[in-house]
Order: sequence, then structure tokens, then C-alpha cells
Amino acid sequence: MAQPATPVTPALKDDLDIVIPTIRNLDFLEMWRPFFQPYHLIIVQDGDPTKKIRVPEGFDYELYNRNDVNRILGPKASCISFKDSACRCFGFLVSKKKYIFTIDDDCFVAKDPSGKEINALAQHIQNLLTPSTPFFFNTLYDPFREGADFVRGYPFSLREGAPTAISHGLWLNIPDYDAPTQLVKPLERNTSSLRYVDAVMTIPKGTLFPMCGMNLGFDRELIGPAMYFGLMGDGQPIGRYDDMWAGWCAKVICDHMSLGVKTGLPYIWHSKASNPFVNLKKEYKGIYWQEDIIPFFQSVVFPKECITVQQCYIELSKQVKEKLGHVDPYFQKLADSMVTWIEAWEELNPPTKAAPAAQPNGVKKDAPAPKPK
Amino acid sequence: MAQPATPVTPALKDDLDIVIPTIRNLDFLEMWRPFFQPYHLIIVQDGDPTKKIRVPEGFDYELYNRNDVNRILGPKASCISFKDSACRCFGFLVSKKKYIFTIDDDCFVAKDPSGKEINALAQHIQNLLTPSTPFFFNTLYDPFREGADFVRGYPFSLREGAPTAISHGLWLNIPDYDAPTQLVKPLERNTSSLRYVDAVMTIPKGTLFPMCGMNLGFDRELIGPAMYFGLMGDGQPIGRYDDMWAGWCAKVICDHMSLGVKTGLPYIWHSKASNPFVNLKKEYKGIYWQEDIIPFFQSVVFPKECITVQQCYIELSKQVKEKLGHVDPYFQKLADSMVTWIEAWEELNPPTKAAPAAQPNGVKKDAPAPKPK
Repeated sequence: MAQPATPVTPALKDDLDIVIPTIRNLDFLEMWRPFFQPYHLIIVQDGDPTKKIRVPEGFDYELYNRNDVNRILGPKASCISFKDSACRCFGFLVSKKKYIFTIDDDCFVAKDPSGKEINALAQHIQNLLTPSTPFFFNTLYDPFREGADFVRGYPFSLREGAPTAISHGLWLNIPDYDAPTQLVKPLERNTSSLRYVDAVMTIPKGTLFPMCGMNLGFDRELIGPAMYFGLMGDGQPIGRYDDMWAGWCAKVICDHMSLGVKTGLPYIWHSKASNPFVNLKKEYKGIYWQEDIIPFFQSVVFPKECITVQQCYIELSKQVKEKLGHVDPYFQKLADSMVTWIEAWEELNPPTKAAPAAQPNGVKKDAPAPKPK
Repeated sequence: MAQPATPVTPALKDDLDIVIPTIRNLDFLEMWRPFFQPYHLIIVQDGDPTKKIRVPEGFDYELYNRNDVNRILGPKASCISFKDSACRCFGFLVSKKKYIFTIDDDCFVAKDPSGKEINALAQHIQNLLTPSTPFFFNTLYDPFREGADFVRGYPFSLREGAPTAISHGLWLNIPDYDAPTQLVKPLERNTSSLRYVDAVMTIPKGTLFPMCGMNLGFDRELIGPAMYFGLMGDGQPIGRYDDMWAGWCAKVICDHMSLGVKTGLPYIWHSKASNPFVNLKKEYKGIYWQEDIIPFFQSVVFPKECITVQQCYIELSKQVKEKLGHVDPYFQKLADSMVTWIEAWEELNPPTKAAPAAQPNGVKKDAPAPKPK
């Protein structure tokens, strides 16, 4: 007798929220329906709270507008950006799940070179549920993928890797370029037959990267409090650096806590390039300040007393104020907001639900491996 | 009137030597003829010097056997390994060219996913002639490839990158696994439809990697003196760590000198797996010692007075003796050989032909970017 078909439960169905910042109707979800419908959505409505956002039938969601943010956070709402996709981090704050996938509403399902539709969420989940390898580079990329492994010369004591905190996905069609590059290369597009790179890799310990928030998964229990997207947009001197800020903060904390960050697959289809002239205005100060910000993050060291993400983040806010405050008063305000963010995080995520104690000395740069004696 | 066809000169035809260590007839060159024939070959014959190695017609080559090594280096010949492919570095020593490509004689032309034969040498040349990006991770991989660029958030002051010293290529068919992995996965093969990754990337500053000597290009003027493959094989307690040793030494020196190391394309077709039982015996001590060697290399710091590769290498030999000497007397012998190697290098490559003065402080970790003020 034939076996009855077993219904397949989507991976992490009850452990993952999809966070979407938006100002428009969410028709883009139609294309994602086969992949997203089983999951819970947290929609953060940016801009005019009186506007009604339409969500396609059949999705399970909660929606927060600016009035909700103000009501829930009170005076602490000042740390949540307005008129900027940085507001997405409010969704991270109110989620009660272990994992987050966040995606922009101009991102659609991409196809791999064989023409198959890519389930971006499933790939992020796979990335997050397998270890990272931040302490040594594996030349065959992700050793945990089928058909790959650690190569000759990879130290055996490092092969367990580290828990993966962040999974950073990429984009077909419109690449994530800054305004000057958009202006110089207005017609550059990526397709699955041009520059589709079939790889997932760990960004090594000690190396910073530009984290894009368009297509991003993370383990909220491991790194959530560091995923603050800063003060951007309305009333702020800077935009389009929200995800970069979160990426730099999260990466230095991951490095301290021996957590892994992966980048590569999955690709999504990014449909529209934002206006490069508008972007240039938003980015101008970011491009300029970044020349100070990067050396700052490259030199961040956390005291070994910092054993939770929250402790690291508070320490980081102090260093931001002390070492970037002279660049512009904006950084003093940002440092204060970082503290407010953590206060809001702890209020909405009481300690019993906080991240497990970290192992900041689990693998040190100078002594990465227990000797197998 | 139609233009007469212009004969195409292969890139770097007069500036690159192909170095091949071997113990057998070089019939494998037939398959490489369309790509290698314009170039000069340096063949290092390992093992019995009375054996006659056959080289296919039409190749321009010089061949050195053990008698030649002894004659040319005299007492310094002790630094060149015998009965091990580590002997290839003798070819690096006697070359007078700026670039080296070295390949094993069991490596054949691979095909890309479209079925096109891959000119591995041309890809190495392209890798070597475009800058690396060791100071910050670019999520779209090599920004100098057609259809790619630096992504949003990549600091503008770091976009010039660094000169590329090493180009590390990969393998289809038989992956470069250690003996334990070979034993566990005897049937694992890679094909262009399985795990062909169409990417070249820079290994970030501060990150070590396992460098395989099977399919490797480098700039001899920039990093040549660091490409010593150590004491392996006959009379030594260790084998199959020759390229690893060279890779660790070269990487820490590249990091100090602000030079770049790339890995990824090109793939070659690796035809035969070596015997895992024999390999296990050769590798045993390497696998064990590596747990001390890696932390050692991760902690190497060069004084700023070291501004040439030779100076760095001599300094490294001192640190090897001091910090690894206690692991096994082998490392004291190896440290002495490292010094002998540099003496041989300077004898055969007098100072006027030495590498240009380096810029060890050109880009520092704590201050990677000149502020555009």
C-alpha cells in the first residue's frame, strides 16, 4: 500500500518572523506567497500613519504604524527612525521569535541559472542553521554544503566552526550600489547568466563588510540587540546608511562573541533602482564620515567583561560618543539612541528571554584551537 | 581594404615562467598546448636524476634535476626538498621573470559550466594584473570583474585596493582534501555542474588560508622570496604541507606589506587522487603540529623596520625558531633552511633585481583610509 503523503511543515515555521518596512500596498507578497504564506509577518508602516496599507489575503500579519511605535515605546520611540527603512528594526524589537528574515518590498523572487525559482527564505534558514567558519578561510567556501568540505590544511580543531548569527543575501537585476556608482553605471544589471555566484561563505573574523538590509536573515537570540538601524531619514543629516551601521556594529560584536556572519546565497530580484540624485543627497555625509567610521570600527575592542550582546552594544555606544563625537554632533545623538534602543529592547524582551551567555573567549585570535593532546 | 589580421601576443609572454615539478614524462602538456606553448617552462625533476623525462615537442623549457640543484646551489642545496613536490620552489629561485605560474602534472584543462575549456593561465594573469581588496570585504566579490563593482557602503578611499601578489586557483573532479577526509569521502568529486563557483575574491587581511600549490600564480617580484616550500619528503618527518607552509608565510608577509591574495577562479581538472593511506602517513605530524602552527601565524607581527620580503622572511625564521622550536626540533631545522633559502635567493637574484621597497605602513589596520579632507 502506498504511504500517505506526509504534510511538510516549513522549516522554523513557528520560530521565524518576516519583517517588512513599507510605505505602500504589499502586492509584492503575491509572488512570495508559496514561500512566505506559512510564516508570520511583521509589517512596519513608514510615513503617514493615516494611510491604509493593503496586504494580500491569506497572510498572517501584524502591522505597526508610527502611532503604534509611539504608543508602545513612549519617549523611547525617539530611537526609531521615521521616513526611512531603518524603521524596520522596530519589527525586530517587537518580535518574539528566535529568527528574523527582513526583505524590502521592491524585492521579488529570483531564478537560479537553471530557471528555478529561488526560495530565499529557505536558503537563509539553511545558512543560519549550519555553522560559520570565521577563524580560518576555506577555499571551497561553505564546507557544510553538499559536495563540499574543509580542504587540506584546514585545522581540525576549527572545523566545528561557530554559531551563525547573520545570513546576508544578494541581489540579481539592480545591484546595491551607492549613488556615485549608480550615476556612473546607470544601466548595469546582474542576471543569473552573468554574475550569479553559487556560493555561501563566512566573512572572516576581523573583517568588516557592507551589510545590506534588503535581503537579510539573522538569529535574534544571538545578535538581535545589535541589529539597530540607527537614526536616519526624517530630521537626520544622513540616510541609506542604516543597514551599514547595523552591519558594522553587529560584525564587531559577532567577532567578540565568536559568532559567524555568512554572505552569498540567496539572491532575490531587486526590481527598481532608487533615484541616484536623491540617494546622493542622503548619502553625502555617510560617504564622507565613513572614512572615519571604518577605522573606528576596525579598532573597536571590547573588554572581556562584555559577555552579552547588550553589554557589548552599550560599550560600543560609549566608544562611538568618545571617538566619533568629534566628527559631528550627530554621533553623540546616535550614541544616545543606541542606549535608548537597548533600554527598549530590554523592556520588550525581559531578561528571561534574553540571549544565552556568550563565550567571548571561546576562540581567541591568538589561540584559536584547543590542542588535541 | 580589410585590415590585416594582427597576431595576438599572449599576455605576459616574456614576463612569466611556468614551473612544473615532476617525476614522469610530461604528456599532460599536450592538453595545455594551446595555452602554454608560447610560454617558457621551468621543469624541476624530482627523484632519480638519471631518469630521462620526456617533454612533448615544441615547448620551450629548461629542466633541472637533483644534480643541477646541487651544482647550482652547492651547500645551500640543503634547503631544497627531495622526493617531494616542494622542490618546485627551486624553479622560483632560478626564474628571472616577474610572474610565475606553477601547476602539477596531474592537472588538466577543465571546462566551465557552458562546456568551454578554461584557460587557467589567462585567468591567473587577469587576477594578478588587477588589484586585490584585502582591507574591506566586497559582497559582490571581485569588483574589477566585468559586471561587478564595489557595493554601497564600501569606503571610497579603499577602492584602489592593493597590488595582487598571489592568485590561488581551484580544482574540479578531485578536491584537495587531506587524508582523513579522503578516507571518509573516497568518492566525492566536483563537477562544473555541481560546485563550480564563478567568483574570484580577496582573502581579507588578517585571515589565513590553506594555499594549494597545484594551480597557483604569483608575482615573483612582489612575494617571490616568501614562496619557499619548506623541508618535506625524503629525510623529513612531514609531507604534503609544503604549499601550506608557503601559504602561511606568504600571507602574513602580504598582510604586513599591504599586498593582496586572491582565490577562486581558475579551475583546473585534477585527475587523480593520491593514495590516502600514504598521505595519512605523510600528513600525520602536519595535522598534529598545525594546531600550534596556526596560532603562531595568527600572532606573527613584523617590526616596521621590515620593509622587504627578504627582511620579513628572515624575521619570520627567527620567530619560527623561537616559538615553534619547542614543538619539535624539526622547526629549528626548518628555520635554518628558511635563512639558507633567502641566502640562495639573494645569490641568484642580486639586489638590483630585488623587489621594490614595500609600503608596510601604506594601509594600516587602525587607519586604513586617508581622510579625503
